[in-house]
Amino acid sequence: MKATVDGKARNIKAVWFDDGEVVMIDQRRLPSELVLKRFSGYMEVREAIRNMTVRGAPSIGAAAAYAMCLAALKGCDLKKAADDVKSARPTANDLFYAVDYMAERLSAGEDPVSAADGYARLTIEKCESIGRYGAELIKDGMKLMTHCNAGALATVDVGTALAPMRFAHMQGKKFFVYASETRPRLQGMQLTAWELGQEGIDHAIIPDGASAYYMSKGVDLIIVGADRIAKNGDFANKIGTMDKAIAAKHFGIPFYVAAPVSTFDFKTATGDDIVIEQRAEEEVTEIAGIRIAPAGSKALNPSFDVTPASLVTGFITEKGILRPDEIGRVVG
Amino acid sequence: MKATVDGKARNIKAVWFDDGEVVMIDQRRLPSELVLKRFSGYMEVREAIRNMTVRGAPSIGAAAAYAMCLAALKGCDLKKAADDVKSARPTANDLFYAVDYMAERLSAGEDPVSAADGYARLTIEKCESIGRYGAELIKDGMKLMTHCNAGALATVDVGTALAPMRFAHMQGKKFFVYASETRPRLQGMQLTAWELGQEGIDHAIIPDGASAYYMSKGVDLIIVGADRIAKNGDFANKIGTMDKAIAAKHFGIPFYVAAPVSTFDFKTATGDDIVIEQRAEEEVTEIAGIRIAPAGSKALNPSFDVTPASLVTGFITEKGILRPDEIGRVVG
Repeated sequence: MKATVDGKARNIKAVWFDDGEVVMIDQRRLPSELVLKRFSGYMEVREAIRNMTVRGAPSIGAAAAYAMCLAALKGCDLKKAADDVKSARPTANDLFYAVDYMAERLSAGEDPVSAADGYARLTIEKCESIGRYGAELIKDGMKLMTHCNAGALATVDVGTALAPMRFAHMQGKKFFVYASETRPRLQGMQLTAWELGQEGIDHAIIPDGASAYYMSKGVDLIIVGADRIAKNGDFANKIGTMDKAIAAKHFGIPFYVAAPVSTFDFKTATGDDIVIEQRAEEEVTEIAGIRIAPAGSKALNPSFDVTPASLVTGFITEKGILRPDEIGRVVG
Repeated sequence: MKATVDGKARNIKAVWFDDGEVVMIDQRRLPSELVLKRFSGYMEVREAIRNMTVRGAPSIGAAAAYAMCLAALKGCDLKKAADDVKSARPTANDLFYAVDYMAERLSAGEDPVSAADGYARLTIEKCESIGRYGAELIKDGMKLMTHCNAGALATVDVGTALAPMRFAHMQGKKFFVYASETRPRLQGMQLTAWELGQEGIDHAIIPDGASAYYMSKGVDLIIVGADRIAKNGDFANKIGTMDKAIAAKHFGIPFYVAAPVSTFDFKTATGDDIVIEQRAEEEVTEIAGIRIAPAGSKALNPSFDVTPASLVTGFITEKGILRPDEIGRVVG
């Protein structure tokens, strides 16, 4: 992804290996400042995963791979290192997968740096493929909309929902993106708008409740990410996604989901089987630790909603764009 | 409305007259504290209108009526007072109407206090009638949803969208209200949830983007307010209203608009003729004066959206509940 570092435009990643150290964008400091952190020990990388210096499942996976790389380079006990790194976050599937991926390659004698770089590169290549397929949907003069952050910060580089926008922009297409702010944690305002700004893609932040208003004024294409896609095409994504999908159907606007094939979960038959995490109400009722809601009023804070497959125009994957009824034929 | 003042439950209004002074809830201090302000001069009331101590067009109208009352009691030049009070806010129609209403009655020799009290009482009586009609829609065990604040704070007492809830609650019905927070200014979180809490009505604050999620889990009735209703039933209300109306249609949930007949504007043929105010982007990009958006990213901040009449189940007015196709027969 493009980013201005110390006043200079550079191409960087959410996490990478440089000169014996793991380097990361400190995502907690965005968008007010771009801080790069360097780590030389695997336990420091574990702490960076734990304290959300790095977030987004694919980026967490890459960070875990580099943590194992550092452990191997320093001659640490790899079994202990694997346990340590896996315990950094409780439910991140990519984290477990990446540690096992590295353990296998390290025990086979593969070079630690090339193994970890290979893991990160696989993630990026899928995003690039999503970007190439998705960019074909974007035409000159279009108005796009997205929600939350399915960008390079979450996927080492390029992103999922933002990948088609990056590729279309590189192809010289002119378009405009509405980025909804995504309450309560504001990833749309603070991460997506930051990425679009760094790339030089024309955009504006809107309140989540202004989505239907701007669709009524003319939106040509909506692209969002996905956390999990059921066998029938129902998918879980950040709360507020379903509101947009319903409004898109109402206004006849194409609604696409960009995600790698690994997001499809064939053990989950339909969206009804997806359990929604309820997060702390303080994310809604407090700002910077100060209560802004009335004393005694509670808040509800579901992380995700589940959008039915009937509202999805297509899934943009690294294997191509699939209609909901084509998932079974191509994926799995 | 019910409110706890100095630890005691009381029935108060957004603005009223007491012992030679105008008393107001300082709405800028809600919900963190309930502060009552007292004013003995009309220019102080004018300043309270200007600085938004009092807000909501009907409450502003009543405050203006009481300002004229104070001017008359103190023997001020009423022509100058009328000009002063009218200039407190630039575009509040109720403000102009209330000043003219008072000027006419004062010049006819009516008692200043009874004239102003009469103006406020008219506003409240309309809300009570809306409350009685609307309460018939609310059944035991229902889950309701509302947006922004169409409550007692805005209408001297009782409210519009909240009036049916107040009456149903007084009738002993048990129900639950989802109050969406209403970014960017959070009137749903800070005013509606406060009013519901003071009344003892069971409720929870939700992010605006969680509206469709909770509808998918079961909402029985949605009631919102309106700022302006066109001849064909299209209506303008706080941004985010249309997102809810579209989702309500998708899930088959009754969607009602509560507003006095004076909100219908027969000079406006359809919603296309309603001009939407675009407010300062800092309401979105800043919190307490601190920028939270990326440098260089702009934000869009439309105040209202326009929901088409086709998404409205009915209008709850002081003359009864009207389907969109019944407006012409009853109103005007």
